[in-house]
Amino acid sequence: MSAFSDLGKLLKPRSIAILGATPDLGRVGGRPIAYLRHYGYRGEIYPVNPKHHTVADLSCFPSIDVLPEVPDMAIVAVPAKAVCSVVETAQNFGVGAFTVYSSGFAESGPEGVEMERHLRELVCAHGSVLCGPNSQGVANFLDRSVAYFSSELGQDDIAPGAIGFAGHSGIFGGIMANECIRRSIGLGYLVSTGNEAGIDFADAAAYMAQDERIGVIVGYIEGVRNAAKLRVAAEIARKNNTPIVILKGGRNQESAAAAASHTGALAGAYDCHRAAFRQWGIVEAEDSDELFDLAEGFSLTKKRPLGRGIGVLTNSGGIGVLCADQLNASGLDVPALNSTTEAELVADMLPFVGPRNPVDVALQALADPDCIRRHIKRIAADPNIDAVLCFLGAIRRDIDGVADAITAAAHETGKPLLAGWLGGEGQAPRILRTAGIPVYPAPARAARVLAAMYADRTYVAPGKAGVLNIAPFRVSASGTLGESDSRVVLKAADIPLAKGGLAKSEVEAVRLASEIGYPVVLKVDSADISHKSEANGIALGIISEKELRQAYGKILTNVLAHTSDAKIAGVGVYEMAGDGAVEMIIGMRRDPVFGPVILLGMGGIFAETLGDKVLRVAPLPAGEGVAMARELKGFALLSGARGRPPADLEALGEVLERLSALAIAYPDIAEVDINPLLVWPKGKGVFAVDALVVTVGMPN
Amino acid sequence: MSAFSDLGKLLKPRSIAILGATPDLGRVGGRPIAYLRHYGYRGEIYPVNPKHHTVADLSCFPSIDVLPEVPDMAIVAVPAKAVCSVVETAQNFGVGAFTVYSSGFAESGPEGVEMERHLRELVCAHGSVLCGPNSQGVANFLDRSVAYFSSELGQDDIAPGAIGFAGHSGIFGGIMANECIRRSIGLGYLVSTGNEAGIDFADAAAYMAQDERIGVIVGYIEGVRNAAKLRVAAEIARKNNTPIVILKGGRNQESAAAAASHTGALAGAYDCHRAAFRQWGIVEAEDSDELFDLAEGFSLTKKRPLGRGIGVLTNSGGIGVLCADQLNASGLDVPALNSTTEAELVADMLPFVGPRNPVDVALQALADPDCIRRHIKRIAADPNIDAVLCFLGAIRRDIDGVADAITAAAHETGKPLLAGWLGGEGQAPRILRTAGIPVYPAPARAARVLAAMYADRTYVAPGKAGVLNIAPFRVSASGTLGESDSRVVLKAADIPLAKGGLAKSEVEAVRLASEIGYPVVLKVDSADISHKSEANGIALGIISEKELRQAYGKILTNVLAHTSDAKIAGVGVYEMAGDGAVEMIIGMRRDPVFGPVILLGMGGIFAETLGDKVLRVAPLPAGEGVAMARELKGFALLSGARGRPPADLEALGEVLERLSALAIAYPDIAEVDINPLLVWPKGKGVFAVDALVVTVGMPN
Repeated sequence: MSAFSDLGKLLKPRSIAILGATPDLGRVGGRPIAYLRHYGYRGEIYPVNPKHHTVADLSCFPSIDVLPEVPDMAIVAVPAKAVCSVVETAQNFGVGAFTVYSSGFAESGPEGVEMERHLRELVCAHGSVLCGPNSQGVANFLDRSVAYFSSELGQDDIAPGAIGFAGHSGIFGGIMANECIRRSIGLGYLVSTGNEAGIDFADAAAYMAQDERIGVIVGYIEGVRNAAKLRVAAEIARKNNTPIVILKGGRNQESAAAAASHTGALAGAYDCHRAAFRQWGIVEAEDSDELFDLAEGFSLTKKRPLGRGIGVLTNSGGIGVLCADQLNASGLDVPALNSTTEAELVADMLPFVGPRNPVDVALQALADPDCIRRHIKRIAADPNIDAVLCFLGAIRRDIDGVADAITAAAHETGKPLLAGWLGGEGQAPRILRTAGIPVYPAPARAARVLAAMYADRTYVAPGKAGVLNIAPFRVSASGTLGESDSRVVLKAADIPLAKGGLAKSEVEAVRLASEIGYPVVLKVDSADISHKSEANGIALGIISEKELRQAYGKILTNVLAHTSDAKIAGVGVYEMAGDGAVEMIIGMRRDPVFGPVILLGMGGIFAETLGDKVLRVAPLPAGEGVAMARELKGFALLSGARGRPPADLEALGEVLERLSALAIAYPDIAEVDINPLLVWPKGKGVFAVDALVVTVGMPN
Repeated sequence: MSAFSDLGKLLKPRSIAILGATPDLGRVGGRPIAYLRHYGYRGEIYPVNPKHHTVADLSCFPSIDVLPEVPDMAIVAVPAKAVCSVVETAQNFGVGAFTVYSSGFAESGPEGVEMERHLRELVCAHGSVLCGPNSQGVANFLDRSVAYFSSELGQDDIAPGAIGFAGHSGIFGGIMANECIRRSIGLGYLVSTGNEAGIDFADAAAYMAQDERIGVIVGYIEGVRNAAKLRVAAEIARKNNTPIVILKGGRNQESAAAAASHTGALAGAYDCHRAAFRQWGIVEAEDSDELFDLAEGFSLTKKRPLGRGIGVLTNSGGIGVLCADQLNASGLDVPALNSTTEAELVADMLPFVGPRNPVDVALQALADPDCIRRHIKRIAADPNIDAVLCFLGAIRRDIDGVADAITAAAHETGKPLLAGWLGGEGQAPRILRTAGIPVYPAPARAARVLAAMYADRTYVAPGKAGVLNIAPFRVSASGTLGESDSRVVLKAADIPLAKGGLAKSEVEAVRLASEIGYPVVLKVDSADISHKSEANGIALGIISEKELRQAYGKILTNVLAHTSDAKIAGVGVYEMAGDGAVEMIIGMRRDPVFGPVILLGMGGIFAETLGDKVLRVAPLPAGEGVAMARELKGFALLSGARGRPPADLEALGEVLERLSALAIAYPDIAEVDINPLLVWPKGKGVFAVDALVVTVGMPN
């Protein structure tokens, strides 16, 4: 926990100085005064500006060091060039927390980068907490400390609520506030981390997660600054049952696609973000609509579906059909109700209306809005149902009555209840949200929120990684290793290999082949040849000594014709794998943010053309390797579909975990590519056919 | 065209009678009078109801046959049981068009089904046009004839516009109207086809497509009633450059999954709908949000991007990043601007702001809203750019100025311009839409509309199918045919087969094998054994006469042990395919709505586990087979990826087209399953290894 900055002084300050305060409350140096007052800030506000005597009826001080007390936080709204100097003065006066609104730092050119470095050093040396520069402010609506300057906050009152928002993009805090106003939902915190010279998203998340009034932490980020901090913040949030929802901007993976190894090509930067989010129980929103939809849902209710069964109540057959389509598309079910429920429903419905899920009340609600309450209660009580979605459309009569019926039903069931209202926003969604019921304008959006709630309920934090011994080893080179050196590394990690070894001469190759038993494979071993087949450096299915001798010479000739100056370590002689194995690709890549990442994909061309792959950030706890395999789209190939024997999943899982342990133990190993790894039927194990290890320096 | 009902009398009636009119204008029999008047209907309105003398200041007639003239259309709003009788009277009086509001027909039970049948016969006999029963009405906002009863229309005025909506679900017309009000976009037609005893969606679409004031036809449908009519309606719409956008409700494919053949399992009812929509250039909306988003986009502009390059202008780096992410996710590009454009931009932007696409104006628009116009114009003029997305957020100052700048830019470029406004609905979207610029609240939504506009621009209608001769053939049975009969059928269609044939004895098998050349495959041939390998009825890789003799006897023993009463036609002897081919599955299934559907999938277990398949409704025009292959996710396997030889695509395409011709020529062939079809390298052709043909009756 000590890795996190304490945001208490930023978000719950007893007094605030505003450096660069201005009497024009529409300007950046004035707006926080207006908002602090409007939202009922109860501490002291000290405007500081040598140009003014009073600002908004408050005494204005020429400089911070003449204030009657040391304020908990200073807002800095002076020109960029003056920031470091005023921060230094404030620190000397004893101020320990700063929110720097000023822009013109790293975002604006080399001079700004230099100023930002100076500012960072200044606050580090003093142990101060810094938010910004280029921050739009820090707001705490729960405790009435709204030190923000976005004009979006000025439109209409924002009620205190359970959403904690943080993000480095200036505009998103304002847009979050605007969404809360538009949807009539409450807001807890807004933290605009700006250039993140000080606190980052993880600091804000860890702080907000410890406030039990917060139901969801919402963020917009373009990159993770410190993966370890984010992971711990996610753990804290999990412990407090507070989901973190992130919209990740910047998904372009072009640079990753240019990587040399298959693992590099398959594990792009955004893939690693997704994998880490998933592992840590962070919900990823696909776009801004979904970010705000999830914020609404998780902030309004702590209830979660215990299973996938959703009961739908509607006033239109068409809407019921759409809800079922979208719930199915989101991986949820619309199960049949049991006969007792159906009998209870039909006894209280209009004639000719079926009580089947999705349940359509047709015109019943027009004269009898309370029927909505009764039906929701019955559906929710059904043992096949884990949550209820009440999706209505085109109701114009007695909207209050309908909304009250839904609200009453929510109080009478312990299962989650979401509402939908096709045909736009308006009075009903407002009433429902104020009563704590999330409301969505389209079936697909409600379905995705329900699916996220179910995923949140069923998320299991990964266990601790076991201790796997990696034997000491020695390789002959660094950089891209040849096959035999690569095998040395894998062997140290106890990763099974195709039988065989490196022959330095034809005679040695003959001896190796007779030890292994024909048929064998010959492969040139050279760190200078990374694509052996392109250089015609491979001979498959050698069945006799005669064939071997011919192939041996031919490979050397081919390779030298291809790359005349290739340094050749020898020719590898390996067992020729028979049929019956599933070809997989596994690998490890070191991501600059997340560190070692383990990849598993379906083998060969399928992995690349169909992109069927699963990634995990290392270390992998016991059992996680098998869990990865289960997430592959082509898992049926391993599980025994269509009369195939089930594959040796345990052995596959173990190799993944050993690869993870190898990556953790040897930071100099930059990349591992095992392609293919052959997975044999259950009990028969796995082995690596081709291996490529890349190191930085000599891993010893 | 004569297949379509003429909707002129429904949608542009010179006079309207309302049977069952009531003075209470809030009720079903009164509301159309209120709406007709409110929207300025210029024809005569004749209320008919023996209970009243006047209705809303109009003379009310006791019965239709005493009206002073024969009205163009009669609205029927009497109880279900009275409908047929009043329609009969009206027809005898000369009325030829009816919109039946009354419910209580097929949707409400067996008695209703019977009444609906009677109603249908009645209007058929007279050649009348019928909309309904259970219709919410027919509205034409362009010509002021709004004969509808949904209360959604009463909220606020609907401006005449370019959206033509039709659907059988009552509620969706009202919701469409509500969306138009909420978004400030205009509406052309609303046709609620109800139970579709008369006109259906295709009739309405064909009519509206011929009105040049209509820019888009929008529909909600749960099923297609008449595939041929819909196809022709789509052709008419295409000819008039009017996209059809459909939201298809009811995607559950459980019944299809229970099908016997692989083709059956892979080509579900919803898959067939999707395939047909795509072939006919009908845009499918994924959910209700997208339906309305597409309606807005296509109704407000006829401009289309000529390529994938989208220029983004924003006032926030974060929004720019999100737009790029979502445009990429929708298959569009955010290309670099050329240096001239960049130079022009940077000369007119604030310092420290990069002119790169996505272009971020940062704070420039606050003081100088017209900069938006200038920048859009420059970006649109760039040769790399095919459309501009101007996505803003959190602007509260001079919104009119910003909206005017965007509007002005739209008039100054011939390329499509879409806008986005993060942070909710409000004044700016209203201004922009009124000026004909579509506006979306989230980047993902704008990106999907742009992608649909690009797809609309690049859609190419399939050509005419060539005439392929299918030779006459004779098979020995009907139903599920054995291998040799199945081969007879495929041979007639000139579909290449593995060499070999049916042996009725061991001696014959030996003779066949020596003709084909070893190695060979033996397969039991029995219509009673559809899964040969489960019955151990297959022997692969037989390399000698001795092995063949042993295997022959063993297969017969195995099969009889598996199914003691199996009728065995013999044992097939076929060439054993070597390596180097790509295994595909192809097939044909007869869909109850769309007729013969052709399937192409990646072979074996991959097709099933990964669902990589492409469907087309037959007939396939020349070249369409190859086009199908190009749509497979695993197309790289056929196109020569990773050093593989390119496959014989032309031969594959030809087989698909021959299969299509076979299906068209022989309606008694219910299903064909070729699994696998081996596709050899370019120039080496293809051949079917296993074939299964199912017939109804004897196809001769």
